[in-house]
Amino acid sequence: MNKKDPSWVQTLALIPPSLQDNTADVDRLLNALKSRLKSNTIHLDLELVRKIPEIIRHSGYRVQCTVLKDRNQWVLVDVRNVDDSEVSAGLAVDLGTTRVVLRLINLADGGVIAESAFDNPQETIGPDILARIHFADQPDGLDTLNNLIISGLNQAIKSMCTANRLKPDNIFVLSVAGNTTMTHLFLGLDPKWIIREPYIPVVNSPEMLNARILGIEVNPRAQVVTFPNIGSYFGGDLIAGILFSRIYESEETAILVDVGTNAEVVLGNRNWLIACAGAAGPALEGGVTRMGMTAGPGVIDKIKIDPDSGEFDIHTIEQQPPKGICGSGVIDLAAQLFISGMVDIRGKLVASKCVTRLKDIDGIAHLIVVPAEQSATGADLTISQVDLDSLIRSKAAMYTILRTITASVGMELEDLNTFFVAGTFGSFINPQSAITIGMLPDLPLERYHPLGNSSLGGATRALTAEDSLEIIDDIRDRITYLELNVNQEFMNRFSAAKFLPHTDPNRFPSVKILKT
Amino acid sequence: MNKKDPSWVQTLALIPPSLQDNTADVDRLLNALKSRLKSNTIHLDLELVRKIPEIIRHSGYRVQCTVLKDRNQWVLVDVRNVDDSEVSAGLAVDLGTTRVVLRLINLADGGVIAESAFDNPQETIGPDILARIHFADQPDGLDTLNNLIISGLNQAIKSMCTANRLKPDNIFVLSVAGNTTMTHLFLGLDPKWIIREPYIPVVNSPEMLNARILGIEVNPRAQVVTFPNIGSYFGGDLIAGILFSRIYESEETAILVDVGTNAEVVLGNRNWLIACAGAAGPALEGGVTRMGMTAGPGVIDKIKIDPDSGEFDIHTIEQQPPKGICGSGVIDLAAQLFISGMVDIRGKLVASKCVTRLKDIDGIAHLIVVPAEQSATGADLTISQVDLDSLIRSKAAMYTILRTITASVGMELEDLNTFFVAGTFGSFINPQSAITIGMLPDLPLERYHPLGNSSLGGATRALTAEDSLEIIDDIRDRITYLELNVNQEFMNRFSAAKFLPHTDPNRFPSVKILKT
Repeated sequence: MNKKDPSWVQTLALIPPSLQDNTADVDRLLNALKSRLKSNTIHLDLELVRKIPEIIRHSGYRVQCTVLKDRNQWVLVDVRNVDDSEVSAGLAVDLGTTRVVLRLINLADGGVIAESAFDNPQETIGPDILARIHFADQPDGLDTLNNLIISGLNQAIKSMCTANRLKPDNIFVLSVAGNTTMTHLFLGLDPKWIIREPYIPVVNSPEMLNARILGIEVNPRAQVVTFPNIGSYFGGDLIAGILFSRIYESEETAILVDVGTNAEVVLGNRNWLIACAGAAGPALEGGVTRMGMTAGPGVIDKIKIDPDSGEFDIHTIEQQPPKGICGSGVIDLAAQLFISGMVDIRGKLVASKCVTRLKDIDGIAHLIVVPAEQSATGADLTISQVDLDSLIRSKAAMYTILRTITASVGMELEDLNTFFVAGTFGSFINPQSAITIGMLPDLPLERYHPLGNSSLGGATRALTAEDSLEIIDDIRDRITYLELNVNQEFMNRFSAAKFLPHTDPNRFPSVKILKT
Repeated sequence: MNKKDPSWVQTLALIPPSLQDNTADVDRLLNALKSRLKSNTIHLDLELVRKIPEIIRHSGYRVQCTVLKDRNQWVLVDVRNVDDSEVSAGLAVDLGTTRVVLRLINLADGGVIAESAFDNPQETIGPDILARIHFADQPDGLDTLNNLIISGLNQAIKSMCTANRLKPDNIFVLSVAGNTTMTHLFLGLDPKWIIREPYIPVVNSPEMLNARILGIEVNPRAQVVTFPNIGSYFGGDLIAGILFSRIYESEETAILVDVGTNAEVVLGNRNWLIACAGAAGPALEGGVTRMGMTAGPGVIDKIKIDPDSGEFDIHTIEQQPPKGICGSGVIDLAAQLFISGMVDIRGKLVASKCVTRLKDIDGIAHLIVVPAEQSATGADLTISQVDLDSLIRSKAAMYTILRTITASVGMELEDLNTFFVAGTFGSFINPQSAITIGMLPDLPLERYHPLGNSSLGGATRALTAEDSLEIIDDIRDRITYLELNVNQEFMNRFSAAKFLPHTDPNRFPSVKILKT
C-alpha cells in the first residue's frame, strides 16, 4: 500500500459465494479486508454484522468499507455499496480548557472539510482546571461537567454538519487531545486525585472507545481516540503537539514550547524525549493586566514605540478602536517600553522617560497605553507596575524552565537549531519581542517556528496517518518527565532571569544591539 | 503459571502510588496484570475504568481481578477488594433446538456449581430449524425468535442464581454452543440464507460480545463466547463436541458421531480433521414412531425379547407404567426383534414369529410392544412396518455416512480404536443393539465411548481452559468439510446398508454369532 494513501476507506470486490465456497458473508468480507490491510484482526460490532448480508447482496458484492486502526486491531465501522457517494468523515478535537476547536476531515483523502470552535461551556462552572476539579467533588458535579462538554460538542457537531451538508452519522471517528483534567472530564472520570499528592490520574492511556458510550451523537459505530497523558500535568494535548511537531523523528535535537499559564516544554529527537511543565503565571497570556483580554476585534496585538519621540504606534485586531490588550500585545509592549527606556533593566517604569503617560492610581504607578479619548472604553487603557512585575516573573520562569531542561541534557539553549512555539498565542508572539524581554533565548529568528494549534494538528494527524496510534504510544513511552525541583540552582537561574533581558547581557547579543 | 490453575481470578497486591511513581490508577493495575498474565493487551470498559480509583484505594491496593481471554487480548471484567468473598461465575450453554442446558461454573476453580435445563421456547414457533427460519422471514419474526430464546435464558439464569444464592451480576462470561441456525437466532442474525443455495451463514466466527448487547441479564460487563460454525450444516455445537472429545489432539485417528436427525461425524487426529453431516431422519431419535417420545418417566428405554418364549422384558425410566418409547428404546427394540426373528433381514415383520402381537391398522402391519392393559395410556403401544422401514433408512444413512467419511481417507471403520458417541441420546444407546441393526460398525464394545452432552462439555471447557479460544479457532481452521455427494457409490453403499445388519454379514461378525 502506498504510504501516502489514506487507507480508511477501502473498496472491495468480493467473490460471490457458491456451493464450492460457502464461507459466511461476514467472514467473506473480513477475509478480503484482512488480506487488503495485511492484518489478522478486524473487529466489527454486532449491529454491523446483522446488516452485512443485505448490504453485500444489494451492492452486487462490491462495497466500500470504512476502517480505523486501533492499537492491536483494525475496526470496521461502515460497509456501503461501492457506488454510495456519501463522505466518511472524522473529527479532530482540541479540547481546550477555555476553547474547543474542531476540524472535520474527509477520511478518504485526509482533506479538511471545515473548522469550527466554541467556548468550553464548563467555563460557567469555573474558568480554570482547579475550580472544575473542586466542583466535580460535589454531588453530580462530575456529571454536570461531563454533560456540559459532551452537549457542547454535540451542538457544535450538529451545526458543523448542517453547514457542510453532512449528517452526524457520516462521522466515524473522533480524535480528542486535551490536558489531563479536560480528558478526565470528557470521559467522565473523577479528576479528584489529579490535584492531590501524589497527583494520580485515573488513567494514562485510555482505550479507543465507542462514541455512543460517551454520549457523542455521531455514527453509532464511531470510535473515539483519546490522546494519552503521562501524568497529571502533562496531558494529551502535549502528546498531540509532539506528534504534530515530529520532534520524535527528528535527527537533530529540537525544542517545543507551549506558552501559556503553564509553560510546557519538550526537548528531544528520534532517540530521546524529555519533558517538563511549570507554572509561568497568566501574565504571559495577558491574563493579569487590568486591560488584558483574549484576542478579538479592537484588541491590541502589536505595539511600536518610536525611540526618539516616544510615540506609541498601536495596532488592533480588525483595526477597531482599542479596548484592551492580548498576550502578544503585552510582550510587544514590554519589549518596546524597555527599548525606549520607559522601563529599566529591572522592569521598573522610568518616570523621566514616561513623562505624561505616567499616572498614579491608589499609590501604584500606571503607564497610559491608550488615553481615554482614543480608547473604545472611554477610559485610559493602562498597564501598572504590578502588571509589569508579574510579567517579569512569568518570563523569568519561562526562561528558567527552558534553561533547566536543556541543562539537564548538557545542552545550551543556543545549541538548538529548531525552536517550535506552539499554541495559538505562540503563533502571534513577535519572537524578537519575546527575546527582547528575555522570555525566549536569543536565537536567530529563523530558528523559531510557530506551530499554531499543535494540539489540533496532532489530533488531525491521528485521523490521517495509519501508524499514528503506535507513534503516540511510542512518544508516551519514550518521554522522560523532568520534575522541576525548585532548588537553589533553579532559584539562582530564576533570579538572574528577572532582569530585562537578563543579568548576563551576553546571553542576548541582539538586544544589546537594539538598545544601543 | 501452573497450567492446571484456572487463571480467571487473579489476586494482585499493587504498589501504592508515590511522588516517585505517579502512574495512573488504571495503568498501575493493568501493568501488574499484564506482567501476571504475560500479555500486553488487556481491555476493560469505561464503566470499570471509572470505578477503579475508588476500588483500589478502598482495598488498600489489594484486589482480585476477574479476567477472560479473548482471541487477541485479555478482558478485565471485574475488580474487587481481595477480601470480597463473592463468587465469579461463568455459564456454559448448550443451545439446543429442542432443549437448552445450562451449567454454572465457578471461574476461580472451574468447579460446577449447578446444572439446569429448559425446553427451547422457540418450539412454540416451530419444532425444527426449518420452520423457525421461515418464521424469521415474517415481519418481526426474527425479533420474536430472538426474544424467546433470550428471555428463556434470562428466566433460567434468574432461577438458577436464586437456587444457588448467586446474583446474575456474579456471572461474568457465557459460552454458547449451538447449531448454526440456533446461533443465528441467539445473536439476532437473519438465518434466511442458511437454507437457500449456496447455503451461506451470516457469520462463521462471531466475536466475543458484551452480554448486554444481546440482552442477557448478567453482569453488565460479562462477555459471551459463541462457538464458531464451519457452515450452515456444521455448527458450533459440533465444534464444542470436538473440543470436548479432544480428537484434535489425539495421536491416533478417532471418530466422533453425534446421532440425531442429522448424523454429524468428525474423523481425525492431531494432524487433520474431516467432518461431514447428513440427514439420517428422525427415526433414530424415536421421532417417527407413533409411540416415540423423548426420555422421561414411563418411557421405554430398554427392551429384551426372550428368543425362545418371545416374551418382551420391558424397562421404563423410573419403572413407571409404559407410555411410549425413546430413541435408545427403538434401537433396542429393532435389534431384539431382529435377533428373535420377528423381523427379517429386510426389516419386515415376520407374521409367523410375531403371532398374536401382530395387528393390522388401516392396512398397515403393527407390532404390539405393550398391550393396552399394561400401558399407561390404556391403548396398545405399537410399532408399525412403516416405522421400521423408516428406521432402516435412517440407520442405513448413518452407516453409509460413516463408511463414506472413513473411505475418503482410505480407512476402514474397523481401523478405528476410538469411537465417540455424542449427545444425550448417544449416552443411552446400547452399542450392541446399534451394531445389531447395522447402524454402528461392529467394533469391540470397549472402543465405544459415550460422551454425553459434548456440546455442553465443550462449552464448559471454553470456560475452564485458558487456551480454549485458540484451540476452537484451530479446530475450525483445520476441519475439512466433506460434502456428501449422493452419487452412485453413495447409493450403492446405502442400498447395501438397508438390510439388518447389512447385505455383507461378514462386516458384522458379532451379529452373526447372536443370530446363531
